[in-house]
Amino acid sequence: MRNTKTPAVLISEVGPRDGLQSVDAVMATADKFKWITALHAAGLREIEVGSFVPAKLLPQMAGTADVVRHALTLPGLTVMALVPNLRGAQAALAAGVHKLTIPVSASAAHSLANVRKTREEMVAEVRNIVALRNEIAPSVKIEANMSTAFGCTIQGEVKEDDVVWLATQVIAAGADESGLSDTTGMANPAQVRRLFNKVRAAIGDKTGAAHMHNTRGLGLANCLAAYDVGVRTFDASLGGLGGCPYAPGASGNVVTEDLVFMFEAMGVPTGIDIGKLIAARAPLIAGLPGEPVYGMTPEAGLPKGFVPARSTEAADV
Amino acid sequence: MRNTKTPAVLISEVGPRDGLQSVDAVMATADKFKWITALHAAGLREIEVGSFVPAKLLPQMAGTADVVRHALTLPGLTVMALVPNLRGAQAALAAGVHKLTIPVSASAAHSLANVRKTREEMVAEVRNIVALRNEIAPSVKIEANMSTAFGCTIQGEVKEDDVVWLATQVIAAGADESGLSDTTGMANPAQVRRLFNKVRAAIGDKTGAAHMHNTRGLGLANCLAAYDVGVRTFDASLGGLGGCPYAPGASGNVVTEDLVFMFEAMGVPTGIDIGKLIAARAPLIAGLPGEPVYGMTPEAGLPKGFVPARSTEAADV
Repeated sequence: MRNTKTPAVLISEVGPRDGLQSVDAVMATADKFKWITALHAAGLREIEVGSFVPAKLLPQMAGTADVVRHALTLPGLTVMALVPNLRGAQAALAAGVHKLTIPVSASAAHSLANVRKTREEMVAEVRNIVALRNEIAPSVKIEANMSTAFGCTIQGEVKEDDVVWLATQVIAAGADESGLSDTTGMANPAQVRRLFNKVRAAIGDKTGAAHMHNTRGLGLANCLAAYDVGVRTFDASLGGLGGCPYAPGASGNVVTEDLVFMFEAMGVPTGIDIGKLIAARAPLIAGLPGEPVYGMTPEAGLPKGFVPARSTEAADV
Repeated sequence: MRNTKTPAVLISEVGPRDGLQSVDAVMATADKFKWITALHAAGLREIEVGSFVPAKLLPQMAGTADVVRHALTLPGLTVMALVPNLRGAQAALAAGVHKLTIPVSASAAHSLANVRKTREEMVAEVRNIVALRNEIAPSVKIEANMSTAFGCTIQGEVKEDDVVWLATQVIAAGADESGLSDTTGMANPAQVRRLFNKVRAAIGDKTGAAHMHNTRGLGLANCLAAYDVGVRTFDASLGGLGGCPYAPGASGNVVTEDLVFMFEAMGVPTGIDIGKLIAARAPLIAGLPGEPVYGMTPEAGLPKGFVPARSTEAADV
């Protein structure tokens, strides 16, 4: 295996959805094309390109169908979109996405605030979306990731049993995978290890991505903790753009640049060229003038003598 | 053991030395007193209060003997000072410190740049300082921590064998412990685990602190990695103040507030009250007007329903 660069982890870029929907400015659709093209050129192979929600609720997501059509021209890219309900799924499948992501809140209070549905109603919605997918686009994958899995800014603690229960429910409803999202930046590494282990015990290899925020600076430590217990898909946002507008006090996603640097430095291949990844900040900045972007690695530069991961062999750390 | 709060880790605050010496402004000695008093009130039990170097080289450290005398009045506090050479050690021992820390560079190039001595000359200096300590203050502890253990901005890679060799040398020279410092912010979690394991295999329980920087955002992930392989002492700097002026491009230390939040959230007691720790930023800011301070946890606040670590029992993560 030496000298191959088969990725050992999948970095799923969520900036064009999670990032853009959290800022007030609206990126023009043509600028989204340029940004997504640059992300793909850096080696990203899964991008959440937008969400299918009413444009009057989220004007930032107005051009998502066009963005999907552009992204579908990029070879080897899994084009993912967020859909909160059946109507969104219909539009996403019509646009031709490869993968749907449905947010399901582990916190009862957050579920009502975010999608105005109970958790049980969201499980039913997952079931309806699965039925639609089975009927008209059986090759499309569906993930149902759990928001507020590690705590909620509205209700505080979220019981681990609730998370495991909901993961089991959405998989029983036909979702292909279910990951855990730290929507509110409340997770800690011990909790990340414990909860991913519990969820894996319940749903096995249908356990999905770790979606971590850096609200209290623990984003990368939490990703490391998830990696340690076998998670291999990580959501991140270029420049740390993003957060959840319905979770007051929550701040940005894990920074893609820093996450990729961490894994590559550890000898875990990501398939991503860090230089090109940093270059992909230019179309983001050009498309959102004046919006702050973050990232320690882009500011510091790569270390002298830095060697990216060379093989999957080194991934046993 | 439940409901005890015996600390499971020792957070060693280095801001009054590593932090202050990296900024241009000079904090007045009286302001240092107030800041150190506030750090102690928050529960910190080891503070590197300054360094004994010529005031013309580092005017920020001019009042260190007075600062030591003040710190010695605080009950239960281990008062530590950095000394680069025998002359510094004489002054530190005369002032009455409990512990000396001697920086020894694993990188040959950094050693010459930082202390104008080869690594072998620094080992001889450690030996001389140990002899002095044995003669006049045998109860004083000596740590010889390795700068640039994970990489060097001047020479690039630092061989792991060099680090293990130097750790062995300084312990043979009579140092009580030797820790590993990521002076340049180049460490990654896999390297941290591997190198601490190698050093522990060589010098056993004389393995000292992890001193991590957050240059590329990996500071807390690296501390987690060190914790995972048995490290229980962590250097950090309130507000992330600090860095090494002789390692170009290096930036601040791990933020004490975020590090303490991480451990407490994980159920690992630190002995530190986070509220009082955040309050200790006020005398830092008052003593260094206009100097930026960092920290995600102070900005975000503690999570709703946050419970600090309750016992040492929960520390098995």
